[in-house]
Amino acid sequence: MSNVTVPKMSKGRVCLAYSGGLDTSTILKWLILEGYTVVCFLANVGQEEDFAEVEKKALALGAEKMVIEDLQREFVEQLVFRAIQCNAIYEDRYLLGTSLARPVIARAQVRVAEQYKCDFLSHGCTGKGNENENARANGGNSQVRFELAFKACNPSLKVIAPWRMPEFIQRFQGRADLLKFAAENNIPVSSTPKAPWSMDDNLVHCSYEAGVLEDPNHTPPKELWTRTVDPVDAPNAPIEFTIHFEKGIPVKVVTPETEVTDSVELFKLLNKIGHDHGVGRVDIVENRFIGLKSRGCYDTPGLTIARLAHIDLEGLVMDSKVRKLRDQFCTIEWSHCLYNGMYFSPEREFLENSIQFSQANVTGQVRMMAYKGNAYTLGRSSTASNLYSEEAASMDSLEGFSPMDTTGFIAIQAIRLEKFGLQKIKDGQPLSESK
Amino acid sequence: MSNVTVPKMSKGRVCLAYSGGLDTSTILKWLILEGYTVVCFLANVGQEEDFAEVEKKALALGAEKMVIEDLQREFVEQLVFRAIQCNAIYEDRYLLGTSLARPVIARAQVRVAEQYKCDFLSHGCTGKGNENENARANGGNSQVRFELAFKACNPSLKVIAPWRMPEFIQRFQGRADLLKFAAENNIPVSSTPKAPWSMDDNLVHCSYEAGVLEDPNHTPPKELWTRTVDPVDAPNAPIEFTIHFEKGIPVKVVTPETEVTDSVELFKLLNKIGHDHGVGRVDIVENRFIGLKSRGCYDTPGLTIARLAHIDLEGLVMDSKVRKLRDQFCTIEWSHCLYNGMYFSPEREFLENSIQFSQANVTGQVRMMAYKGNAYTLGRSSTASNLYSEEAASMDSLEGFSPMDTTGFIAIQAIRLEKFGLQKIKDGQPLSESK
Amino acid sequence: MSNVTVPKMSKGRVCLAYSGGLDTSTILKWLILEGYTVVCFLANVGQEEDFAEVEKKALALGAEKMVIEDLQREFVEQLVFRAIQCNAIYEDRYLLGTSLARPVIARAQVRVAEQYKCDFLSHGCTGKGNENENARANGGNSQVRFELAFKACNPSLKVIAPWRMPEFIQRFQGRADLLKFAAENNIPVSSTPKAPWSMDDNLVHCSYEAGVLEDPNHTPPKELWTRTVDPVDAPNAPIEFTIHFEKGIPVKVVTPETEVTDSVELFKLLNKIGHDHGVGRVDIVENRFIGLKSRGCYDTPGLTIARLAHIDLEGLVMDSKVRKLRDQFCTIEWSHCLYNGMYFSPEREFLENSIQFSQANVTGQVRMMAYKGNAYTLGRSSTASNLYSEEAASMDSLEGFSPMDTTGFIAIQAIRLEKFGLQKIKDGQPLSESK
Amino acid sequence: MSNVTVPKMSKGRVCLAYSGGLDTSTILKWLILEGYTVVCFLANVGQEEDFAEVEKKALALGAEKMVIEDLQREFVEQLVFRAIQCNAIYEDRYLLGTSLARPVIARAQVRVAEQYKCDFLSHGCTGKGNENENARANGGNSQVRFELAFKACNPSLKVIAPWRMPEFIQRFQGRADLLKFAAENNIPVSSTPKAPWSMDDNLVHCSYEAGVLEDPNHTPPKELWTRTVDPVDAPNAPIEFTIHFEKGIPVKVVTPETEVTDSVELFKLLNKIGHDHGVGRVDIVENRFIGLKSRGCYDTPGLTIARLAHIDLEGLVMDSKVRKLRDQFCTIEWSHCLYNGMYFSPEREFLENSIQFSQANVTGQVRMMAYKGNAYTLGRSSTASNLYSEEAASMDSLEGFSPMDTTGFIAIQAIRLEKFGLQKIKDGQPLSESK
Repeated sequence: MSNVTVPKMSKGRVCLAYSGGLDTSTILKWLILEGYTVVCFLANVGQEEDFAEVEKKALALGAEKMVIEDLQREFVEQLVFRAIQCNAIYEDRYLLGTSLARPVIARAQVRVAEQYKCDFLSHGCTGKGNENENARANGGNSQVRFELAFKACNPSLKVIAPWRMPEFIQRFQGRADLLKFAAENNIPVSSTPKAPWSMDDNLVHCSYEAGVLEDPNHTPPKELWTRTVDPVDAPNAPIEFTIHFEKGIPVKVVTPETEVTDSVELFKLLNKIGHDHGVGRVDIVENRFIGLKSRGCYDTPGLTIARLAHIDLEGLVMDSKVRKLRDQFCTIEWSHCLYNGMYFSPEREFLENSIQFSQANVTGQVRMMAYKGNAYTLGRSSTASNLYSEEAASMDSLEGFSPMDTTGFIAIQAIRLEKFGLQKIKDGQPLSESK
Repeated sequence: MSNVTVPKMSKGRVCLAYSGGLDTSTILKWLILEGYTVVCFLANVGQEEDFAEVEKKALALGAEKMVIEDLQREFVEQLVFRAIQCNAIYEDRYLLGTSLARPVIARAQVRVAEQYKCDFLSHGCTGKGNENENARANGGNSQVRFELAFKACNPSLKVIAPWRMPEFIQRFQGRADLLKFAAENNIPVSSTPKAPWSMDDNLVHCSYEAGVLEDPNHTPPKELWTRTVDPVDAPNAPIEFTIHFEKGIPVKVVTPETEVTDSVELFKLLNKIGHDHGVGRVDIVENRFIGLKSRGCYDTPGLTIARLAHIDLEGLVMDSKVRKLRDQFCTIEWSHCLYNGMYFSPEREFLENSIQFSQANVTGQVRMMAYKGNAYTLGRSSTASNLYSEEAASMDSLEGFSPMDTTGFIAIQAIRLEKFGLQKIKDGQPLSESK
Repeated sequence: MSNVTVPKMSKGRVCLAYSGGLDTSTILKWLILEGYTVVCFLANVGQEEDFAEVEKKALALGAEKMVIEDLQREFVEQLVFRAIQCNAIYEDRYLLGTSLARPVIARAQVRVAEQYKCDFLSHGCTGKGNENENARANGGNSQVRFELAFKACNPSLKVIAPWRMPEFIQRFQGRADLLKFAAENNIPVSSTPKAPWSMDDNLVHCSYEAGVLEDPNHTPPKELWTRTVDPVDAPNAPIEFTIHFEKGIPVKVVTPETEVTDSVELFKLLNKIGHDHGVGRVDIVENRFIGLKSRGCYDTPGLTIARLAHIDLEGLVMDSKVRKLRDQFCTIEWSHCLYNGMYFSPEREFLENSIQFSQANVTGQVRMMAYKGNAYTLGRSSTASNLYSEEAASMDSLEGFSPMDTTGFIAIQAIRLEKFGLQKIKDGQPLSESK
Repeated sequence: MSNVTVPKMSKGRVCLAYSGGLDTSTILKWLILEGYTVVCFLANVGQEEDFAEVEKKALALGAEKMVIEDLQREFVEQLVFRAIQCNAIYEDRYLLGTSLARPVIARAQVRVAEQYKCDFLSHGCTGKGNENENARANGGNSQVRFELAFKACNPSLKVIAPWRMPEFIQRFQGRADLLKFAAENNIPVSSTPKAPWSMDDNLVHCSYEAGVLEDPNHTPPKELWTRTVDPVDAPNAPIEFTIHFEKGIPVKVVTPETEVTDSVELFKLLNKIGHDHGVGRVDIVENRFIGLKSRGCYDTPGLTIARLAHIDLEGLVMDSKVRKLRDQFCTIEWSHCLYNGMYFSPEREFLENSIQFSQANVTGQVRMMAYKGNAYTLGRSSTASNLYSEEAASMDSLEGFSPMDTTGFIAIQAIRLEKFGLQKIKDGQPLSESK
């Protein structure tokens, strides 16, 4: 009977980001019923997924093609390593796990659309602007990030965003409507009970949002976290390991048992260390791009460790003034670019040029320990930079410097402060309280 | 025989920062022998010290007066709480424990000098610029901070800095010279063996530097840390507690056993929680003001916890754009002011005015947990701000907003990015790699 | 026949920003025909306008009421003086003349709407985002600024923006449609030929955009400028005058002929000086909020002079570090806030608090000269600050400072640079070319 | 008799920055009398100077060698063009004319010192920190800049700074002492009466400081300015010309009479245009590095024009977000680096990398006019960038954009502002005044 509803003439070919879930299955079927030919696309960025199952389902529902691409390497090397190089962090806490994956996925979807001569790109993101993509109750940040990337990568491809189309929204007003449509169209529905929150995972992290988490005072339940062991349950013995960096990029991780140099493999090893020892859990209320606040929980084991090690090594080898400039503008601005979906932008490119320049000497190794929820640096060394020297640090032999020099340094630094103090005294104001 | 060397006419009255150690005892005696009258001053900023013993020693060595002032309250309320309000941190890691105490100590020393009609201020800081004051092998940052504060608070008081005076340095070239002088002048010398590093402690933290730590790859030994239990030895059961803030300042801490509202007492309670559960250890290589790098270890239990809670609460109640501006400018710049001894400066006052303005709505409570080296937020709430609402977060009922609005938002945000992408295509350059 | 189309029941009361031009007259009539009751509002922010004529026209077209408010004083005192205090400038050239007026106008329109129990706010802005409001071919920046202000001041008032309503746009696709509608509805049409560009003026400036100016290489014709005499035609004799400031605000202007202290009157006097001597013409390509570039010409006589004088006085009285922080974040960020319509925002309030704090000592007088297109400072003086002193400047008597102090200052500043140079030599890289 | 005072054994070879004036002639002779062999060095950075006369004088006074190097090309291409690329300006007014020359001179002096196997570098800068070098009453900024450059370029060369040596200062306490020494040592003294201010000139500008200018309210006399005609005396007819840029660097200047492409020659042509039409006079009170304020007058004809043209072209071709980041960080920070003598520093190198990256598309031409003290842009064009298009500016044909999109854009931008307004209403605070 279904051939009755298939139109004779295709309205065009759509490349749909397809996850196999109820939402995107509904969209897939709906697009076909609307007269489109659909090429499904799924990026492998390290999430837990039965890819074969997704493919089977897509084809069963009528997709012309199901394209699954393993993007883990470009994800790690082009995005995650850049984040490590600039110590990226959003609002002091969030390591941008979801944001980092988006450009890689969007770029690949455009690539696939071009390859299969698609006219349209489609996705199942909804409108609210938080970090997850794969739950109807969420979206927002995701759709902004995907579509800004689409526009930059190929503005000639049109976007079909069903969750912003009045006819679609009218038809599917709640989960009941989706289930009814699924039953009518032979869309298999998972019998696994859904978690009372939404999740999005990839090689870097898993995020948890919405549902019971919308109360910011509701403590995430123990079973929520999927990427890290509860610190309370973590091993009683710490693990020690060493991360080697070249120009700010991790190039080798050594544990008592193994030594890994491949980019993806070493990141997975850091993930495993972090996972086993419960490192990298964050629970925050953050500011979405669109101006609303959102509560998110993230477990980000490997990146938390790598970022900490990188910051530590920079302490040893990076000039203080360069570091301050980098912190004030590159780190904060690059993180905001990524969060706001501005990856394919002139400002991100501009900032990244600075970031890479700053990493010329960030070469060396950091010894670390992970234990019950935390990672610690144990020591660091580098032969790339002359900025730290034990002799200079103790100043027993700092060439061309005498203790008396400090007298002049202080005298000159004090010129402004003396004037400030005298003015305050003259004005009868306290020197040290601003209120 | 000693009266032979005491001159008839005093060269003037000196207010000496006196700790009771070998260095400042030597300076005290030397100043007296040089013909000065000496008023000793010791600030109680919460360090571990036998104050009665220090007083006894000073008077025995010939000090005219020993003044000990308890500055803990002004330290906590005027400096530490300000640091909490702006999430102060230096180079991503150091919470400025020593830097925060300096302005309070220096201001009090000037106050005492004025009260006792002194003509001079003196201290035992040496010239190398690291975080500690009370070891000859250290100094530098300390002397800069103290003397800049002296100049701002009262430029008419002259400074005697023996460790920068050629005649003093010539005479005391090593510990042997100090011990010889001590023996000759009845200066009691502690028989406790000295730690192979220098330490400086106060209510906020203890710092450890120099000695074996000068090798940045030398892991701090287990016995080094004095303010925190080793995480490995911390209790197996987490502790839960709540911190209440008003305008960014902690006003109440509640644990299962107690509830404290006094500023000093609540900070001590946070210290105790942090101490017992091993929270707040940091080991870094940092950039000193004078341009050298230095390795420092710090344990900062209470401030680590308070800062984390404050950041968390700001997530709930602070506007995103204000936060970004505050992070980029106030947090980083205020932290640098403090680190560099620029507390009594127009720029610190300017920044602090902004910081306090930003805290108007930072009122609410944060529930936390401490466990084996880490502190975690469990939840937060506030009635002071309307920025977070569960309804808006889920966007089921965000007034005046429709999912379709995002279409226009994306279209306009994309204008620049499309042009960027098209230019790249035209120029034959890759869109997403800066190198 | 028109009473046929007037509905019995009003759809509600609309407060319409009405200028008397063809566009807003059309909207006025259209709203009435659509069944709304219309209260017209016109702000007097110093533009050249026959206000009585506008009122007559509005009432003739069926407005229930025409409200004209003189906002010049609040415009000058709350917006323009704030701009002077922070040396506001957008992209190095534009003094924000239009942007500064918008918040005052929008706030007044909301006030009027509330007073007359309106349900709606309406305006005739179009969609393209440039600086002018009163030409159909323009708009964009204006509508964003007005509507963001409306939302902040009273989100319960709904907005009717005809130039974004499909039914309106469909009906009025070109000037011919407007003229036809005008003829049918007795809307008087000005017989004055329209300039080949659009204009928007107020007490601060006149802006010129669109039309022939859209070619950025087309030199603005001599007759374009309305607020300034052509420098070539300006008097051959310069005029000298003095501006007095208190806390960064101009409080008195003295010329050879007069002395003015009233805020609005002194600003008008500065305008006259600037006008007569051709000061304040700018021709730029700027970046609109929405991401497009736009060419604009502005003549801004008085504000150009006042800003220059204020910058000059700050040189004499403001601390260097406060100035740098203020320049980097307050000046640039406040200017962007205003340009982007973010006046009623937490970040503008945050920045303005800092700006005002920075002005505590910006009190003094600046002697100036205007001549053929330029203003020059001739001298400045202040008794409010101790930062400049002739004695210190010549350093013949700088207390507590000796030439030898510079040796130590240089030695310590050089520590980082020596290491940098040595590293470069070691790495075989040139020291001074980054490429 | 003089051979009595010449020691048999040289204390070493000194490379002295020698200008031929009374101060450096005194130093030259004094160094010889102290037993040094002296190689004199004079950089030609475009200043007005009788170089042959200086050489003659140096050799007559006993210099082993007089080295004069023409550094104009490296000055223009490596420093001045970089300043143009980043619109460098210090404290909103000063174009850094002196600061830009210092690194080139210092680097060349080190080069000469190495070539002639010198052990020491020497200069005649004094201690007060202002912009000029060649008057005893001045100095400060100069000595800091020179010596920081020396240390970076070759820390093994020792510095002899006579005006900071107690024995020298004691001996030469005033001009009378210098004249007496000159008479005794056959040092020729110029009979030209000295201007009542000090001057320092090079290809970029002439600076005027000290003397009568120390009163900041003293208007510079008409005869002070040497590089620009008084605007009042400038031609009654404007001159029109065009500057062509490639990647932010001026590559051609076209006037009605000539067309120049050589870097030094085109800069000289811009200087001539500016000179003849009185462009580029600045009179300010600025903040010296060492914390004192100083009054300086500068005439900077060509650079003023080139900077204005460059800013104008950037408006046409540079992305808005990149521009804002560049303005906030690169422009301000690079300018401070140069002013403070931090040219040979890691932060300058870091910033310059960003600056150059930002200039990739700053290619095009700017038509200008100079007239009686001012330069105006008349138009600009570029084929390098797609950011400006007449079609998009008029938005009649902006692809993929509809006026309705603005509705969504505004709705989302307003989310934060509505909440802000509602909170203010709830708190009973005014929305728009920060005080």
